[in-house]
Amino acid sequence: MTKALERRAKLRDALIEAAERAITARGLPGVRSRELAQEIGCANGAIYNLVENLDELVLRVGSRTLARLDAALTAAEREGPAEPADMLVRIAVAYCDFAAQNLELWRVLFEHRMEPGREIPEWAISDQMELFGHIYRPLAVLFPDRSPAQIGVTARSLFSAVHGMVALGLEQKLIAVPIEALRSEVAIIVHAMVDGLAASKA
Amino acid sequence: MTKALERRAKLRDALIEAAERAITARGLPGVRSRELAQEIGCANGAIYNLVENLDELVLRVGSRTLARLDAALTAAEREGPAEPADMLVRIAVAYCDFAAQNLELWRVLFEHRMEPGREIPEWAISDQMELFGHIYRPLAVLFPDRSPAQIGVTARSLFSAVHGMVALGLEQKLIAVPIEALRSEVAIIVHAMVDGLAASKA
Repeated sequence: MTKALERRAKLRDALIEAAERAITARGLPGVRSRELAQEIGCANGAIYNLVENLDELVLRVGSRTLARLDAALTAAEREGPAEPADMLVRIAVAYCDFAAQNLELWRVLFEHRMEPGREIPEWAISDQMELFGHIYRPLAVLFPDRSPAQIGVTARSLFSAVHGMVALGLEQKLIAVPIEALRSEVAIIVHAMVDGLAASKA
Repeated sequence: MTKALERRAKLRDALIEAAERAITARGLPGVRSRELAQEIGCANGAIYNLVENLDELVLRVGSRTLARLDAALTAAEREGPAEPADMLVRIAVAYCDFAAQNLELWRVLFEHRMEPGREIPEWAISDQMELFGHIYRPLAVLFPDRSPAQIGVTARSLFSAVHGMVALGLEQKLIAVPIEALRSEVAIIVHAMVDGLAASKA
């Protein structure tokens, strides 16, 4: 790597980290190109030599969030062996904890929408898809007779249902749900869903 | 009612309807006071004689959306008698259909956040709480031994889980889920949840 390329890579990392701090502090509206340029010490327009546009910048921050989420779910899996249903509950509760501890960064994963006409790039989609593996693997053990496509649909449904509970639970729009109550509700509902799915196959 | 009050009430209704059309067409960013004032034929500042602020305006539109959602769920209930589990499935599928058919108005119910320091008014909260009755009633039949508070928690969890499935399913960020597939997944998952909850009480 030439020195110029090296310098650019460092500045780009600094930009992504600055955007991450801005989101943590003020959510998506905190991502302002002028302030970020100032923070990393470059000219206003120069950040567009580092990322294509603000959409890419937000997606790069998202990529880091997803990597940390992946690590958190992997750590939960490694707490020890468990029946597939219990493993799914453990992963759901770990997801709930991660969301509570990384509230703004996690929200941005779902709130961010691309500018009209822009597509989400492949790399960002594959980052997201990899996380489904945590749900897919226990389901594949539970339902050995189902096709990968069917298990994929169920994994998506389980994820969406848990995500809904966590999102509305942490939103605290209507009634603040204390985190302990939310964790236990998530565990109860995931267990019920998985038991109900297993019973209906019999 | 004096003529002046009558005129104000009419203009206020026109404003709320104009905001509703703006949201249907362009989502929350479509709510711009200047354009709305122009559309209903009043001076820019005059709309603040009709509503306190744009937050109130968006909540008034939300109130109309919730009333239509209530009507849609009531219609689903009246399709005929059903076991409580089947009734919960029917209501969840009706919710899914309503969201798909009223996408922007339904999104705003969840995306809108009050300006910092402003509280959601009581009337808006009670509009929202009433809808939980549709889930609460079948659950109360299923779980006669549970307290109203416990059933309320389960109603909230079921709602959040279904909402998550519908929200991510209609978002089409990753994979477009055809509406028919989404309806059937919602039905499968709600049945599984309710069966699992019923089995765990036994």
